[in-house]
Amino acid sequence: MVIRSLLISALLLACKAPWRTAAWDPTWESLDSRPLPAWYDEAKFGIFIHWGVFSVPAFDTEWFWWVWKGGYDGPVKPSFQKFVEESEVKNFAYQDYAHRFTAQLWNPDEWAKIFKRAGAQYVVLTSKHHEGFCNWDSRNLHHTWNWNAMDVGPRRDLVGDLAKAVKNTTSSHTNQKLHFGLYHSLFEWFNPLYIEDMKNNFTTQNFAKHKSIPEMYDLVKKYEPEIIWSDGYGGGHSDYWNVTEFLAWYATNSTVNQTAVWNDRWGRDAMCKHGSFRTCHDKFRPSNLTEFKFENCYTIDRGSWGYNRMAGYDAYETTADLIHLLIETVAFNGNLLLNVGPRADGTMPPIFVDRLVGMGDWLEVNGEAIYKSKPWNVCQNETASTDVFYTTTVDAKTGDKTLFAMIRSWPEDDKLRLACPETTNHTQARMLGVTKEVAWSAATEKVDSGNAASSTARELQGKTKTKTQKPGMELDLPPLNPATIPCQHAWVVALTGLKNL
Amino acid sequence: MVIRSLLISALLLACKAPWRTAAWDPTWESLDSRPLPAWYDEAKFGIFIHWGVFSVPAFDTEWFWWVWKGGYDGPVKPSFQKFVEESEVKNFAYQDYAHRFTAQLWNPDEWAKIFKRAGAQYVVLTSKHHEGFCNWDSRNLHHTWNWNAMDVGPRRDLVGDLAKAVKNTTSSHTNQKLHFGLYHSLFEWFNPLYIEDMKNNFTTQNFAKHKSIPEMYDLVKKYEPEIIWSDGYGGGHSDYWNVTEFLAWYATNSTVNQTAVWNDRWGRDAMCKHGSFRTCHDKFRPSNLTEFKFENCYTIDRGSWGYNRMAGYDAYETTADLIHLLIETVAFNGNLLLNVGPRADGTMPPIFVDRLVGMGDWLEVNGEAIYKSKPWNVCQNETASTDVFYTTTVDAKTGDKTLFAMIRSWPEDDKLRLACPETTNHTQARMLGVTKEVAWSAATEKVDSGNAASSTARELQGKTKTKTQKPGMELDLPPLNPATIPCQHAWVVALTGLKNL
Amino acid sequence: MVIRSLLISALLLACKAPWRTAAWDPTWESLDSRPLPAWYDEAKFGIFIHWGVFSVPAFDTEWFWWVWKGGYDGPVKPSFQKFVEESEVKNFAYQDYAHRFTAQLWNPDEWAKIFKRAGAQYVVLTSKHHEGFCNWDSRNLHHTWNWNAMDVGPRRDLVGDLAKAVKNTTSSHTNQKLHFGLYHSLFEWFNPLYIEDMKNNFTTQNFAKHKSIPEMYDLVKKYEPEIIWSDGYGGGHSDYWNVTEFLAWYATNSTVNQTAVWNDRWGRDAMCKHGSFRTCHDKFRPSNLTEFKFENCYTIDRGSWGYNRMAGYDAYETTADLIHLLIETVAFNGNLLLNVGPRADGTMPPIFVDRLVGMGDWLEVNGEAIYKSKPWNVCQNETASTDVFYTTTVDAKTGDKTLFAMIRSWPEDDKLRLACPETTNHTQARMLGVTKEVAWSAATEKVDSGNAASSTARELQGKTKTKTQKPGMELDLPPLNPATIPCQHAWVVALTGLKNL
Amino acid sequence: MVIRSLLISALLLACKAPWRTAAWDPTWESLDSRPLPAWYDEAKFGIFIHWGVFSVPAFDTEWFWWVWKGGYDGPVKPSFQKFVEESEVKNFAYQDYAHRFTAQLWNPDEWAKIFKRAGAQYVVLTSKHHEGFCNWDSRNLHHTWNWNAMDVGPRRDLVGDLAKAVKNTTSSHTNQKLHFGLYHSLFEWFNPLYIEDMKNNFTTQNFAKHKSIPEMYDLVKKYEPEIIWSDGYGGGHSDYWNVTEFLAWYATNSTVNQTAVWNDRWGRDAMCKHGSFRTCHDKFRPSNLTEFKFENCYTIDRGSWGYNRMAGYDAYETTADLIHLLIETVAFNGNLLLNVGPRADGTMPPIFVDRLVGMGDWLEVNGEAIYKSKPWNVCQNETASTDVFYTTTVDAKTGDKTLFAMIRSWPEDDKLRLACPETTNHTQARMLGVTKEVAWSAATEKVDSGNAASSTARELQGKTKTKTQKPGMELDLPPLNPATIPCQHAWVVALTGLKNL
Repeated sequence: MVIRSLLISALLLACKAPWRTAAWDPTWESLDSRPLPAWYDEAKFGIFIHWGVFSVPAFDTEWFWWVWKGGYDGPVKPSFQKFVEESEVKNFAYQDYAHRFTAQLWNPDEWAKIFKRAGAQYVVLTSKHHEGFCNWDSRNLHHTWNWNAMDVGPRRDLVGDLAKAVKNTTSSHTNQKLHFGLYHSLFEWFNPLYIEDMKNNFTTQNFAKHKSIPEMYDLVKKYEPEIIWSDGYGGGHSDYWNVTEFLAWYATNSTVNQTAVWNDRWGRDAMCKHGSFRTCHDKFRPSNLTEFKFENCYTIDRGSWGYNRMAGYDAYETTADLIHLLIETVAFNGNLLLNVGPRADGTMPPIFVDRLVGMGDWLEVNGEAIYKSKPWNVCQNETASTDVFYTTTVDAKTGDKTLFAMIRSWPEDDKLRLACPETTNHTQARMLGVTKEVAWSAATEKVDSGNAASSTARELQGKTKTKTQKPGMELDLPPLNPATIPCQHAWVVALTGLKNL
Repeated sequence: MVIRSLLISALLLACKAPWRTAAWDPTWESLDSRPLPAWYDEAKFGIFIHWGVFSVPAFDTEWFWWVWKGGYDGPVKPSFQKFVEESEVKNFAYQDYAHRFTAQLWNPDEWAKIFKRAGAQYVVLTSKHHEGFCNWDSRNLHHTWNWNAMDVGPRRDLVGDLAKAVKNTTSSHTNQKLHFGLYHSLFEWFNPLYIEDMKNNFTTQNFAKHKSIPEMYDLVKKYEPEIIWSDGYGGGHSDYWNVTEFLAWYATNSTVNQTAVWNDRWGRDAMCKHGSFRTCHDKFRPSNLTEFKFENCYTIDRGSWGYNRMAGYDAYETTADLIHLLIETVAFNGNLLLNVGPRADGTMPPIFVDRLVGMGDWLEVNGEAIYKSKPWNVCQNETASTDVFYTTTVDAKTGDKTLFAMIRSWPEDDKLRLACPETTNHTQARMLGVTKEVAWSAATEKVDSGNAASSTARELQGKTKTKTQKPGMELDLPPLNPATIPCQHAWVVALTGLKNL
Repeated sequence: MVIRSLLISALLLACKAPWRTAAWDPTWESLDSRPLPAWYDEAKFGIFIHWGVFSVPAFDTEWFWWVWKGGYDGPVKPSFQKFVEESEVKNFAYQDYAHRFTAQLWNPDEWAKIFKRAGAQYVVLTSKHHEGFCNWDSRNLHHTWNWNAMDVGPRRDLVGDLAKAVKNTTSSHTNQKLHFGLYHSLFEWFNPLYIEDMKNNFTTQNFAKHKSIPEMYDLVKKYEPEIIWSDGYGGGHSDYWNVTEFLAWYATNSTVNQTAVWNDRWGRDAMCKHGSFRTCHDKFRPSNLTEFKFENCYTIDRGSWGYNRMAGYDAYETTADLIHLLIETVAFNGNLLLNVGPRADGTMPPIFVDRLVGMGDWLEVNGEAIYKSKPWNVCQNETASTDVFYTTTVDAKTGDKTLFAMIRSWPEDDKLRLACPETTNHTQARMLGVTKEVAWSAATEKVDSGNAASSTARELQGKTKTKTQKPGMELDLPPLNPATIPCQHAWVVALTGLKNL
Repeated sequence: MVIRSLLISALLLACKAPWRTAAWDPTWESLDSRPLPAWYDEAKFGIFIHWGVFSVPAFDTEWFWWVWKGGYDGPVKPSFQKFVEESEVKNFAYQDYAHRFTAQLWNPDEWAKIFKRAGAQYVVLTSKHHEGFCNWDSRNLHHTWNWNAMDVGPRRDLVGDLAKAVKNTTSSHTNQKLHFGLYHSLFEWFNPLYIEDMKNNFTTQNFAKHKSIPEMYDLVKKYEPEIIWSDGYGGGHSDYWNVTEFLAWYATNSTVNQTAVWNDRWGRDAMCKHGSFRTCHDKFRPSNLTEFKFENCYTIDRGSWGYNRMAGYDAYETTADLIHLLIETVAFNGNLLLNVGPRADGTMPPIFVDRLVGMGDWLEVNGEAIYKSKPWNVCQNETASTDVFYTTTVDAKTGDKTLFAMIRSWPEDDKLRLACPETTNHTQARMLGVTKEVAWSAATEKVDSGNAASSTARELQGKTKTKTQKPGMELDLPPLNPATIPCQHAWVVALTGLKNL
């Protein structure tokens, strides 16, 4: 209990911590004690890009190869087999798709502009997915020959070119450069070096030592990513993958040691346990405040991370749902890493851009409640009567605190009842994007706070139980029509002068 | 003047006219005297599909071949040449793209569902574009060998399969089947048979007689399209193209003679002069009521009719702009034929579906003001102070008339001032999708009607001039919030009990 | 009988006939009365080239398309279907092979050198085979669009480039340029224009008039071929094909009117009846002297005219068999048109060159007996006891006649008994390539001349019957060892001073 | 000198040596002391097959990749670059050729039949050339992923399927199965693992230990080749390549330990020094008897080992030259390994078969002088006056010895003078394929033996010098004409009852 609180404190105050200059040890204990670099927590919203040879068939899933072959035991999956038979010649192999991964029409600066317009603060690209294809110039490594973007396919350093474009792009919200990270799959489905280690129950480490780990060093040295987003430990323990040594180097000796962050997918023992931040599982969506910083990696195309030509319109999330997801994620101490699947030719399907622009438009008005915000340790969401989530900020100069009530559903009668805030005489309310103040009154009836019953929250909040006995507040949301409403899908009221902030 | 009025009357009342059973003569005079089949005018909104070999490069424009080659005189266009050089082998020819026009993932029923969801009442597919590639089973014709969808490429009767799917689909608005039409290009850029006729100043007719005309007969006999959407007369007179004979047969003897309609692109003499309806030029957007029925063929991708991989997000029209365009088009006596460019594999880019779904959602609420409506001959739009367009309907049973004021911009103060309607004591107003009546008052100040100054409107309206002296009305638009507003982008107030309807 | 003799005389003496300057009429009567231009009869040995889209699959036969599809009634042939399924994608069409007909490595001058080295005097290229693909720049014609070597595939005027190379090449035997001819298929298997005429029992002539005939005019005008080698009348009568008019023009008005020759495949009525020379059927190999000039078109690859990757070694004729065939053909009044099938990339399979070089080496020694020779009207071959064929020549200056006895099988005992020649006191014998005279003696026993019993020969020769009663001669073939023998496979003894020459 | 003689004796008598059952040590000393298994020396004539990804471009040389890229330092070679640019798309990589290495039309039994027909006794296939592509099922190895015949291209175990076919084929000469061997390249031009070792001056052994050596074990275990034909040591010492250990295992512990042979290309120290037999350099053609068993690997296509579409006819060796080469090679203690380059589709170019059939025909008559023969240690060839080479055999039952005089040039006067054989009274001569004995007489004039002056021969022959003082013999070659001559290109006279045999 005490330890947990300390951890949370450390985590939430990371940005103010005097930077630890000592080296980090290659143990989870040491690595996990490293404060999270502030930029990551402040960023809140990043873009995930799944791009690889799987973008060529663009059929159903980026796990195309695996599903087609029926994994290790087969048999091949009939619908995938039919697809290949109809579109390719008899001797066709998955590897032959690489030739058509051309990136011919790719303009990395265009991508960076799109991500900026979305309001994203960082970008994570698949440097290598489970297929094993290296999207970077890995020709100096021993084991990526003929299966990397310089040798075949694009004949171009995709990672390098995107890194440059992203790092040259300034966020309009933070006036800082976008951050660049790299996804990297530890295992490779069909790499015989890996399969052997696996068959040896990971008692041999040939793949980890000669393939995966050298790749990560290579990536950091060449492209200085501030995130290593590991994936695909494939049943192995983090000892097999030998990752703590790498991470200690990354955090201590690499050129990006000050700002480097990493996720939790480093072995079956590490998943959701270790790492600068945790992803736990794909589309991780906790329903309470988490004591650890988490990241929800989520897809716009509900069914696939890679580009999928088969995705019908209804497979794509709506802008509203994505904004709602961002709100909820941030309120619960997470970042949202929203995935797009570009085409093999390097063009970005406009449906993704449409959703990203929708998010960017919303953030243009409401970014104040998102970027650099912290979860409200008192209460994160109101669920009883209303669909409201909270974040907080502190003014760097004045120390004034603001509570942001992010409203995902506008009340029909324009009356927004909030149980969590405790008002004072000088409490003020304004809606982001609207000039006039919002009228409010102290609530007179009893209300239940949203997640008061949740055990985690309860433990953390301590006195919540008694507080819920007290009245909250009721806001008269302003009458806005299509000509005056500042945004769609969700609206934010900023509250100041509260007692319990 | 008299003739014009008669024509307008005939046109506007076409659905009530006793059907003329006599045959139509192969003259424009006779053909133009044929009343427009009612279904077309009532439909208002159709989908245009540009699909062909050009969908394979999907580079910049469906005029790819022409632009690449620099037309007849060349030289090849450098940017296109570069594109081809980088993506193809040395001996590559445009014709080789046909092989990759596979339609492998095509499901015509899926397309039909999308069009239904958009609220479209008819669908027009390119049976053959200027490239000359026949999307149907034209193997019985002499001159389409090796350049049609059965011989090469899809190896499938695209026209036939889409015709079946569309004709089997019931509109949720009209409870009738969707109508099916076919675009057909008269000329073909590089067909030597055409080029010779052209070089002979169209004194020879080999191409018209042996290629184009037989194709149209073939299409009508096989697929019974209710629209022939001709294009590409290429400088020829309609006498060269020999089309009146075909149209007389189409209107008199074909199996679809009762419902057949056609456009105006049959020769330099016919463009914007003859035809069941007129298109005048691409994206024709008159600013007044037209005396003739017109169709605005418009693209969602602003820059290309065919699928264009290069189109950035901003090339796509917003849903709002498309709804605004539909409103304006219908008010001025037009139909909107909105174009989509599917991919060569038969999948429909979701960005198009997104816009179509947006339109369908709006029509779900407001279709009453669109389908089967007529322009208001008194006044079509208010432009002075507000952005409002009108349509009218008559109740088939009671004969009661309704005026629909379609509001594209919501007034900031919720006060909508309308100059055109003359109120009575029993005038009533309601907003579509909203239960409560809309309060209104007779206007007390002078207002100018929107297009009162336009000559066409003036002549038609007769007494407009004096009427504008009289006050109109002011509506108090209801207070709607995001929870109660019935739709976005435009709103419709239905007015009954008006004096001047 | 008289007429026949006259014809033969006319034919055999064509070279000396004063050239008829009058025009030839578009009737077979007139056209057949035209003397055969001397060059053709003197040439004896030509090269046939089958090159086209069928050279791409190069599978089994140049009739690939037809066999695969099972002709008009199908079904597809399983072994061909299997081949296509394994090597191509599902929507593959025969037409798609054109793209890979690149001629990328083609050097027409290299081909011409090979033909010269073979001792050939003329070259006949398929300008268009039954598949309908035009190997020349036919873009000005109306009906070859997208299916000719300029529009797709080689993107090069194959006919033009080979014509130039051949016409620039000087035969080492005659010191004259090689002659150039063009094969042209009248019908096209799957051309719908043709199929319609055929279904109309050739009562319509759309295909003939608009496709085939214009092509032949185009070929003659552009490339001035001295042979039109027609093929593929497909069941039609020469009236349907309308060819006499073309031939009359070719012989009278074209730029090559003086030297033009043509074969007999112009309709079911013409085959083996009309034409400058006759081919009767593929690999026509009469066993007697023909009264008409014939041509044996023969393949080196026994099973295919087009390049066939499946041809095993034993499918190729040996050099010996080909030399023997040439000997026999010339003796019976024929020319040999020996076929090669180059690859789609323009390279000539060396096995063909090997055979051609073998023939060239033999002709280097024995050409004197072949070129410009005439059949011996007395006797063409000895078959009873020996395998010997005859030709004759007349010295242009002296008028001295030589009989060439071409020995295909060397007698084990070196004694060559000949029944046909009647010796005199000054009869002399020498073997070509050997300096010393060949000793001989008048035969003392009765021998039968080879083809004396054949009815045609008998009628022609008149008094043959009594002559066979007389003794011939016996030659002592010289003792030659591998170091001194002038050639392999066949040997020629030149006889002069004979009575019956 | 003593050692040398012992070696020669061991070598020449290998077949009779009691087999050493003890293990061989991983030293050259031990390995070189192992007697050559008899089958190899007796075989004399084998077929070499160069087949790989290089067979796809089939352009100029199997070193295509290397030449194109300009080796390690570049720049690319213009003519190769032009070829690739014209035939491929911009992002094309050499690796992409693998897809077209289909072996689709391959029938390994057909190949085996051809090799049998050629009279070959063994077959050596490239299991992997310098490009690194593994022609076998190497998927269990760690480092051949995506670059082997199962993963991409043929999708078939080429080595396995040919091994089976060859081992099932019985030689018509020996009534034994054909032997199967494998070529294997130690280094790989562009493998980064190799390049690193090379840059480290071969002080690291990653490539040798993890790539090359495991491959050879894998090949032996799976396919039991009786020859490992190593190549491509690339500047490395045999210590770097670590080969003696492998060879010791191969000779001692593998399933083919009794019959295994290997060549000499195992390092810069081993070339032409160590190995069961020596190749010294490509097309090694000594002009004297060698003390070691050698193999002349020679190409039919003079300019390329791999299939080369650019090879003109004159690039191919004639049958005569190849027979002459075989004669000379065997006389000097060598085997001839004659190379063919099949096509990527698995068909064998008929020109190769033509030459092989020519050799087979000759061996049909003269095999007695070749197979199981030994060089004549007295004299190997007569060069002064005639072009004659010798081999000898001993009758297994009687112990009678025969000397074969292989005549490459028939003397014009049929008199064949031989200096080397010392006749006796019972000396007999017969020509292979001819029934009648050959008349001969003892020579009366002095003649010089052919290679008497060569130092190696001199040392070996000891008393040669004095012997050449003595007269030899003169044969009256029989009068043979084309009907009676048993073969072409070379003739063999078998001599028995000689003094110096």
